[in-house]
Amino acid sequence: MPVALDALLAELPADAVTTDPAVIEKYRYDWAHDPAAGMPVAVVRPTAADQVQTVMRWASTNRVPVVPRGAGSGLSGGSSAVEGGVVLSMDRMRSVHIDPDCRVAVVEPGALNAEVKAAAREHGLWYPPDPSSYEICSIGGNIATNAGGLCCVKYGVTTDYVLGLDLVLADGTAITLGGKRLKDVAGLSLLKLFVGSEGTLAVVTGAVLRLVPAQQAPSTLVALFESMVAAAAAVVEITRSTRPAMLELMDAATINAVENHLSMGLDRTAGALLLAQSDAGGAAAGAEISAMERAALRCGATELFRTDDPAEGEALAAARRAAFPAIEKLGSLLLEDVGVPIPLLAQLLSGIADIAKRNQVAIPTVAHAGDGNTHPIIVYTPGDADAERRARKAFGEIMSLAISLGGTITGEHGVGRLKKAYLPAQLGPDVMALSQRVKQALDPLGILNPGAVL
Amino acid sequence: MPVALDALLAELPADAVTTDPAVIEKYRYDWAHDPAAGMPVAVVRPTAADQVQTVMRWASTNRVPVVPRGAGSGLSGGSSAVEGGVVLSMDRMRSVHIDPDCRVAVVEPGALNAEVKAAAREHGLWYPPDPSSYEICSIGGNIATNAGGLCCVKYGVTTDYVLGLDLVLADGTAITLGGKRLKDVAGLSLLKLFVGSEGTLAVVTGAVLRLVPAQQAPSTLVALFESMVAAAAAVVEITRSTRPAMLELMDAATINAVENHLSMGLDRTAGALLLAQSDAGGAAAGAEISAMERAALRCGATELFRTDDPAEGEALAAARRAAFPAIEKLGSLLLEDVGVPIPLLAQLLSGIADIAKRNQVAIPTVAHAGDGNTHPIIVYTPGDADAERRARKAFGEIMSLAISLGGTITGEHGVGRLKKAYLPAQLGPDVMALSQRVKQALDPLGILNPGAVL
Repeated sequence: MPVALDALLAELPADAVTTDPAVIEKYRYDWAHDPAAGMPVAVVRPTAADQVQTVMRWASTNRVPVVPRGAGSGLSGGSSAVEGGVVLSMDRMRSVHIDPDCRVAVVEPGALNAEVKAAAREHGLWYPPDPSSYEICSIGGNIATNAGGLCCVKYGVTTDYVLGLDLVLADGTAITLGGKRLKDVAGLSLLKLFVGSEGTLAVVTGAVLRLVPAQQAPSTLVALFESMVAAAAAVVEITRSTRPAMLELMDAATINAVENHLSMGLDRTAGALLLAQSDAGGAAAGAEISAMERAALRCGATELFRTDDPAEGEALAAARRAAFPAIEKLGSLLLEDVGVPIPLLAQLLSGIADIAKRNQVAIPTVAHAGDGNTHPIIVYTPGDADAERRARKAFGEIMSLAISLGGTITGEHGVGRLKKAYLPAQLGPDVMALSQRVKQALDPLGILNPGAVL
Repeated sequence: MPVALDALLAELPADAVTTDPAVIEKYRYDWAHDPAAGMPVAVVRPTAADQVQTVMRWASTNRVPVVPRGAGSGLSGGSSAVEGGVVLSMDRMRSVHIDPDCRVAVVEPGALNAEVKAAAREHGLWYPPDPSSYEICSIGGNIATNAGGLCCVKYGVTTDYVLGLDLVLADGTAITLGGKRLKDVAGLSLLKLFVGSEGTLAVVTGAVLRLVPAQQAPSTLVALFESMVAAAAAVVEITRSTRPAMLELMDAATINAVENHLSMGLDRTAGALLLAQSDAGGAAAGAEISAMERAALRCGATELFRTDDPAEGEALAAARRAAFPAIEKLGSLLLEDVGVPIPLLAQLLSGIADIAKRNQVAIPTVAHAGDGNTHPIIVYTPGDADAERRARKAFGEIMSLAISLGGTITGEHGVGRLKKAYLPAQLGPDVMALSQRVKQALDPLGILNPGAVL
């Protein structure tokens, strides 16, 4: 594809554009490692919003596809490169400024989630959303996918913290929506339309994020169960009356993988491990943990462990976050992200076990159980074509199962390119048509992340 | 305007459509009492979503404007009737069903906010958003305006609680977005685009609302200050480090109006009254109230009063909610709803005092101070044309002031028709154009609430 790259090179600083094949290769994939990723003609790494405007004006004029990219840690192929297109990497725009009086962070999209958290902490403040990848994922990517995490069961997801966005539209127009004001209903609610739009509607060049006072040191509860179904029942029982600050679930296969990986003394014989925290502080936390303990016992917990030691609690949370790298040692992976209404968690988990058996693949499962969001991880032997085929079949079957239970094919990772084929089954033709109308209104040339989501 | 009403009458139950002028008169205005409200040809009061589809199909075919309406308590003229159009009142669709396992309420739009709260309470659950008008406003109206309230400083606004919507689009297509799942990022984030769209993009026929466990009995703090500016400084100081469950501000004129109205012993000599609550429970609430007390003292509080008695706390909150009816006794009112970033609250309040003086009108002011959202209430003598002119001038000047401070012309009431002329000054031409593109994509014939917002 002959692309008028010269015109772009002429308008941007020399170090902002690269066509070096070795560099391009690094920016071609995200963590989904989509083998279908195209070969881009250039990687653009802007340092300011006006350079993003330049890119989008040029792309509009020349009808070049642009794939916006944060830290490349996406799991659905939302930033896989497009053949003949440009990768627009925001990894050089990463300033973070904390305004403690407004209790907000003003950030550029390339800043890592962990960097925002650290900057907030210096002011006694906290940015809650915490994807397991928080140390390596960017705020821009978090906004693009409306990322969740472990504390979302109490504190909500990324969109709940986005007060303002600086955006560059497909035609290069720069706009600002929202800002440092906490409440604002003036005009259509466009702001949150862009959160979770996976780079298909605009490029985020800045954000104002709501912060809250630092979380109190958490108290932690571990409850073991004979089965995932029993643990899932406990999740419903717990969330009916308490607001845990974390409510995570690991199955036996995950417990063992993590134990192999970290050797921290987890009970390898348990059928399921529920990890809950309360950040209510002091006596209130004690009361919350006790209430959760009673709920777990009513649902058949076989063993309970509680601690008020934050270091011990963090070690357990780290074990949960290590599930993905731990399971990665077992083979090639397909990582699922399906969710259902909480009372249907048990049905979803049983169904996943059936799918594993039927397709002869292992599917260790972890879950942000408190909001019904599960990560079944399909493991198959690398290089075994038949195993890979069965794994892909299971991948689709799990999504169909989630949809049949009134659930979603993705709770927090996004649709990207890997799940695009399954989206119509969840949304139906009318919502798909409406989505296309909105996409058409905002990106009539279809140059923003084509092939993702829609 | 000759409207094919016969066709509509033929398709709907007889009791769903009325052309009785006396009934029409009742549905012609909302609380903004906009004298420019048009004369509708009919009021339709559907009892099910399929009737709403019928109305919208008919309206599309015949190009008839449709004004969706909840309880009619809107303050910005968002449901003022349109000449020759149809008022689509949702006041007969008001079912409320609580699903405690999912911790959600499944509601029809005509249900009152208070009815949802009451139904949730029966299951030990709580629907937080609490506009001062919660006893008389509908959930549909709350969704249309993305309504706020007193507890929003800690618990967020309506959009933060909307998990799912049933909608009828302009052409009569019925769609469902979201549902009982707590996390879902599948597809574009269309759901929240409709929250706060004031009936201009679709008609809400049902909603799934997130509930939380019942709030703990609050502890309450009242702090008096010599001036609004000192109280505003205390607001910043308090919110920097604590999360009050309520943080309301009343000026001297409001204190006196409420005291005239309720005779509850408020100090008539105070320059400003700050009302804060903590719902952290027990010792944690005590610690939060103490921290707020210290912050208030650092900012010059002249008197402090604290109580753990929930009844006393509720009486004080009721006094705050009574500000509007209390001030209504003083004359005709223009109710403002401007907001700014919290640190600019003092500047906004000083500016409002200047505007009052300059225009020789009284502007008692109350505020959801914790989120920078103020309600200056412009009072003028009924029938005094010059006073009304000065009041309207002040109304505009307050909005301009808020915009100049990086604020908003409306924090929670909506733009409706009363503030439409001021919207472009806040949003600017590019965001206005983008809004028009989205409106055009969703309502190409412009039949949904024409004249409101855009």
